[in-house]
Amino acid sequence: MTLKKYAIIVAGGSGTRMGLSVAKQFLELDGLPILMHTIKVFQIADIEIEIILVLPTNQIDHWKELCKKHSFNCAHTIALGGSSRTESVRNGLNQIEAEGLVAIHDGVRPFVSKELIHICYNTAKDKGSAIASVMLKESIRFVKADENKAVDRADYRIMQTPQTFKVNLIKKAYAEAGNKEFLDDASVAEAAGSKIFLVNGSYDNIKITTPDDLDLAVLIYNKKTREQ
Amino acid sequence: MTLKKYAIIVAGGSGTRMGLSVAKQFLELDGLPILMHTIKVFQIADIEIEIILVLPTNQIDHWKELCKKHSFNCAHTIALGGSSRTESVRNGLNQIEAEGLVAIHDGVRPFVSKELIHICYNTAKDKGSAIASVMLKESIRFVKADENKAVDRADYRIMQTPQTFKVNLIKKAYAEAGNKEFLDDASVAEAAGSKIFLVNGSYDNIKITTPDDLDLAVLIYNKKTREQ
Repeated sequence: MTLKKYAIIVAGGSGTRMGLSVAKQFLELDGLPILMHTIKVFQIADIEIEIILVLPTNQIDHWKELCKKHSFNCAHTIALGGSSRTESVRNGLNQIEAEGLVAIHDGVRPFVSKELIHICYNTAKDKGSAIASVMLKESIRFVKADENKAVDRADYRIMQTPQTFKVNLIKKAYAEAGNKEFLDDASVAEAAGSKIFLVNGSYDNIKITTPDDLDLAVLIYNKKTREQ
Repeated sequence: MTLKKYAIIVAGGSGTRMGLSVAKQFLELDGLPILMHTIKVFQIADIEIEIILVLPTNQIDHWKELCKKHSFNCAHTIALGGSSRTESVRNGLNQIEAEGLVAIHDGVRPFVSKELIHICYNTAKDKGSAIASVMLKESIRFVKADENKAVDRADYRIMQTPQTFKVNLIKKAYAEAGNKEFLDDASVAEAAGSKIFLVNGSYDNIKITTPDDLDLAVLIYNKKTREQ
């Protein structure tokens, strides 16, 4: 049996960290808002994926205008952003009624690949979860108060998104999470007792949160366009 | 009393990881080899800094030609690269006879700032060591075999260079290190019982080791040039 596939695209940013008047997910890359680049990858990866876009209430009208302006396929459900990421994701999950698999993904990670999306769903189907992650490139130290010590970077992974789960597993975890704040969905699932399964992400799969990230995004975009 | 200041610039790369025939430290940024950009920052930061450049034996002639071609100030000592980073740094340290402070820095980190260099020497003078480091931008997990668990990224720092020490402290540590391999100089000093002191590095202070890094380097170089 094929499980239903959902993707919750979380676009909660207001642009304040960018020092910009426009929310970072609406900044353009090659003429198209970042958020559209992100959604497009999921649309192309598998036409069956049901996309749920989580947007702050005050950005919904603007988003609809942008979809019209760019003739963008807006066959996605919109969920309201909350006051925290946890609340935003929970609002997204509340839109899902059936069983299946759900990939939770940052709206400002446009360089997720179709292949990674496939791997995430396939792995989560088998293992319950699939979290994109990469190795650390540089050595790290553990710091506590004014003490610190070397730790082996090979023992750590940097988390990215998609963070993909069986729907019932992650819905139950978010129900138990209450108002507690978590860094990511894997932590929410872990707190509810689920084992977390990691898959290989990509260094290109950056989260665009600062002006420097946007410069880097142009670089990655051009590289990917060349490679196609 | 002013302590003597040394900088060991470690340029051991052969270019194999870049998939290039030229060693990565000789790749050009705005017409000048990366390694010259790196050395220049130390020359400009403080004219009193004695620079020791560690180069693989088979690159020394080429380096001298490049210095001539670029009319580059070559008032630096050259030490021979070893078969490992540990050996290369030890060869560099062997060139130092006086007491003082030594900043050990990657030849392919050209975006170290003058300010960071000053902070490193000043801090190492007080504390014995000063290691440039930055916070993690994304959440991480601790991984062991097929288990993994969330850890707080705020408890970790990514190490960069310069890694700066009192000369006698780091010379003693390298003497004790023997042939054991270490990830960085802070780990060598720590293994010999020294307390490690961290200072704030910069996200721009990247290590150029892959073709993608080189693209990013152009971006950072252009940004820094605009800011000047």
